[in-house]
Amino acid sequence: MILEDLQRKLRQRNIQAYMQTMNNMFLGQDVLEKENKILELTGFSGSAAMLLVLPEQAFLLVDGRYSIQARQETNPQQITVVDTNQFFLTLGKLCRESGVSELAYDPRSVSIKNVRYLQEVFTDITLREEELVDGIVTDDAVEVFEHDIRFAGKSAAEKCAAVIEALPKKYAAMLITAADQVSWLMNLRSHTLPDTPVLRAYVLLDRSGKAFVYADGCTYENIKPLKALTADLQKYCGRSVWGDIADTPQQILKILPDGVDLCFKGISPAAKIKLVKNATELEGFKNCHIRDGVAVVKFLCWLDSNWQGISEWDVVQKLGEFRRQQDLFFSDSFGTIAASGANAAIVHYQPSEQHNSALVKDSVLLIDSGAQYYDGTTDVTRTIALGNPSDEIKKAFTYVLKAHIALATACFPEATPGQALDAIARSRLWAYGMNYAHGTGHGVGHFSNVHEGPFAISPNNVCPIYESYVTSNEPGYYKEGAFGIRIENMIYSVPAGKEGFLKFKNLTLIPIDKHLIDKYLLSSEEQGWLNSYHQEVFSCLAPYMDAKEKEWLKAACSPL
Amino acid sequence: MILEDLQRKLRQRNIQAYMQTMNNMFLGQDVLEKENKILELTGFSGSAAMLLVLPEQAFLLVDGRYSIQARQETNPQQITVVDTNQFFLTLGKLCRESGVSELAYDPRSVSIKNVRYLQEVFTDITLREEELVDGIVTDDAVEVFEHDIRFAGKSAAEKCAAVIEALPKKYAAMLITAADQVSWLMNLRSHTLPDTPVLRAYVLLDRSGKAFVYADGCTYENIKPLKALTADLQKYCGRSVWGDIADTPQQILKILPDGVDLCFKGISPAAKIKLVKNATELEGFKNCHIRDGVAVVKFLCWLDSNWQGISEWDVVQKLGEFRRQQDLFFSDSFGTIAASGANAAIVHYQPSEQHNSALVKDSVLLIDSGAQYYDGTTDVTRTIALGNPSDEIKKAFTYVLKAHIALATACFPEATPGQALDAIARSRLWAYGMNYAHGTGHGVGHFSNVHEGPFAISPNNVCPIYESYVTSNEPGYYKEGAFGIRIENMIYSVPAGKEGFLKFKNLTLIPIDKHLIDKYLLSSEEQGWLNSYHQEVFSCLAPYMDAKEKEWLKAACSPL
Repeated sequence: MILEDLQRKLRQRNIQAYMQTMNNMFLGQDVLEKENKILELTGFSGSAAMLLVLPEQAFLLVDGRYSIQARQETNPQQITVVDTNQFFLTLGKLCRESGVSELAYDPRSVSIKNVRYLQEVFTDITLREEELVDGIVTDDAVEVFEHDIRFAGKSAAEKCAAVIEALPKKYAAMLITAADQVSWLMNLRSHTLPDTPVLRAYVLLDRSGKAFVYADGCTYENIKPLKALTADLQKYCGRSVWGDIADTPQQILKILPDGVDLCFKGISPAAKIKLVKNATELEGFKNCHIRDGVAVVKFLCWLDSNWQGISEWDVVQKLGEFRRQQDLFFSDSFGTIAASGANAAIVHYQPSEQHNSALVKDSVLLIDSGAQYYDGTTDVTRTIALGNPSDEIKKAFTYVLKAHIALATACFPEATPGQALDAIARSRLWAYGMNYAHGTGHGVGHFSNVHEGPFAISPNNVCPIYESYVTSNEPGYYKEGAFGIRIENMIYSVPAGKEGFLKFKNLTLIPIDKHLIDKYLLSSEEQGWLNSYHQEVFSCLAPYMDAKEKEWLKAACSPL
Repeated sequence: MILEDLQRKLRQRNIQAYMQTMNNMFLGQDVLEKENKILELTGFSGSAAMLLVLPEQAFLLVDGRYSIQARQETNPQQITVVDTNQFFLTLGKLCRESGVSELAYDPRSVSIKNVRYLQEVFTDITLREEELVDGIVTDDAVEVFEHDIRFAGKSAAEKCAAVIEALPKKYAAMLITAADQVSWLMNLRSHTLPDTPVLRAYVLLDRSGKAFVYADGCTYENIKPLKALTADLQKYCGRSVWGDIADTPQQILKILPDGVDLCFKGISPAAKIKLVKNATELEGFKNCHIRDGVAVVKFLCWLDSNWQGISEWDVVQKLGEFRRQQDLFFSDSFGTIAASGANAAIVHYQPSEQHNSALVKDSVLLIDSGAQYYDGTTDVTRTIALGNPSDEIKKAFTYVLKAHIALATACFPEATPGQALDAIARSRLWAYGMNYAHGTGHGVGHFSNVHEGPFAISPNNVCPIYESYVTSNEPGYYKEGAFGIRIENMIYSVPAGKEGFLKFKNLTLIPIDKHLIDKYLLSSEEQGWLNSYHQEVFSCLAPYMDAKEKEWLKAACSPL
């Protein structure tokens, strides 16, 4: 559907305004390109946005990561791009300013939490349910497979028992609607989404420990169609079932049998347990980071002698080739970002076969990429010097590195919220009047979502950290129209050796480009960190390199 | 009333539980000792607590600052002390655990916000209004005086106009129930409270800019008795009046005329404007800090040759003498904390004439004190070496100093929330596995509350900072039973020279004890900060010192 058709529909049905999210009924998951209704309606290809459509107007709400890209990809005659970090608050305000008193939405694609928020904060705006847009979930056949316990570390039965143990006694069951939690809990995965191996399904977990899985299009044993959920919920009549208000679409309230008390309280016990990686998962994370490091270092060595005359898309292709050769490789973990020169300032720029630039000399190439391996997931950003970048770029890179090291070497009490960890890194850039319009880190799922909530190292995240959380560490700096820098490692939390305190250990094993470092801006501790990191990288990866690559790696990892 | 009598009353009236706050109807203000019902009922003399009384049991809820003191001052047979940072959440949980289904409270001493919170979170507990305790507000005559415009900088009329300007158009008036906001707005003060010159009053501010003041016991012109408020609110029948849910006691809802729509939304525009100190206020803050520095330095010089054989109470007396000699002195700004040796680990320990200790040799003396001057308010903590404190103490002091300097030298974007600034300081102590159970800083009112909200530099504060905020910078470290350290300066926010960024400047001018510093633990930048701070202290204060004092100050301010 094109935007004009939707707007015609609004006029025909007398709808003042309609909001389109990027979700389908599996909230917070990636959607397939053909399910991405915002892409279809506006041309915006980023991974997060909200669209507010009025009969004669449309607003595309995006966060700082997509501020530039959204304006490039959309028609300013049709669509006004609005920068915000609070989609629903801004949406409500835009409705008010536009004189909207009734707002339509699709109950399949908006969480109960967000519907309630709009109702509470914008008491002057009435909400109206409308299914105006087709195809928000595809009905293709879904190929399901089991995530082997030698990678998952624990059986579905063990995980179900642990979740039930954490579920308050008053609940007879738990309805899990977050696909990544379902996939983790049941050790199930699928090939549906290109970069995220989750199975898009719901689970009804009974207090007995027995779990029922609901998904459409599967022929896998014991998976029921989604429509069977209503009947299965019947047996909880007169009892309480726990759900997560943020993960569950408003639609669920419509299919709920009378008499079932679906209570929505706090953060899912499954989400909390999933954040704490078990020993097998951590071992897998370490192992796959060696293989991923081997792939990326081989690529970087190749790039060093081949970057002249190639394009960003060539970079994406070549890096993919090296990764695919690694054992246990499943897929990329997200669309590779390879951004050269000014493109690197577009935080989530992604080149395609059709749209890409040639690599720019005397600037930087920012590569943010990762892979799904059966034993773990990777996500790494390296910013590479091509030719002789300016002193301004080197200075900025070195400051970003200081912020990166500040978090990498931080020691902090158990249960510190993500926002405090964010300030530890970010304040090192603030010191130079610099900042970045994205979080410092995000949780990473195990052979699952590369963005795993609810923990994140970002300005408003209040989720406490505990031992064995896996997260990214990725401060950056972006100068619009000029260059962009990001340095990202994956890290995990371990005891710091002082009671009640934690620190991080590195997972990522890839050199940080010394050509971009002004060593005189680093303290001796910071220099020491970098040198010992590079030493570790070299000793872990050298055995897998050929002679030329080993020589390249040795130089890349030599002391500052 | 003693606790047993209250418990007898509960049994007689069939009340399952009763909560007693430390407030009266002027929420968030100090109360007079005779109005402090928690002191009367339990013996606990700290400034923040909540009491939950059951017929046969009582729980005293205190935060980390009072954890030790509360246990020392109360009878464990009668009272269980509970440590918490969330009084109302913990209170609700304690009720639940004790099987309480109905909780009584005094509507004069609990905010509408907290009543709503309890109703929303603890749906299984019914609230019941009861006035069980007498004397929560004294009816003594109140002496009111005007805060001269040469100190206040702006007239009440100007301030009223600015607040009305910031009040959303839909409100016909504003009800201000926070005494510090009222006092600031009207340039009125009183002698009621010992250390806080606020007038305990309400204001009804009409959109025309006309303001009506309500307080009991005053004969000052144009101040009406509180009971006149109901009649004056009548004229807003059918219109909306703005109020602050957090500052307004539940009682107000009971006296509200029918038809007046009292809306409670967000943070008071008056509170926000009050946080931004005007040029006259800032000038006064600077000037009074010179006088305050003179008083404290003269005291420290005296202490240096007289500490042996004296007590904490002698310290309080002597320091008070020096301050009282300063121009424009009005009162202390809070009860002086002078804590020697292990007492310093009790964060808010206050010696009295009856209860105090002799100064302990080879340990520290922590002095947290301040004054109200007509042109500003001071609040400073210095930790002083007596004899030869241990290396452990020096190390801890130096680490606390690093945290202090980190905040003092921070550069950060305008609108950074208090919690991020807190992490900047606190993380420097975390690095050594250390922490402190209080915020890093609090707003300071101008000749008003020494604690001024809603901005604070503390772990959960989301209030954004702007230019010309005045706050304290006071990280610390406390080892129970051994020693305590706190280093506190007052600071204010100024443009940092990079667009959109702020930094702090110092107000406090008092040397930091070099005997407690291990200079080899400081970076050269940190050493530089201390040396230049001491140079500033010396040049500002030396002109006011006699020969002996000047010599002492010179040594105290000499480079590391």
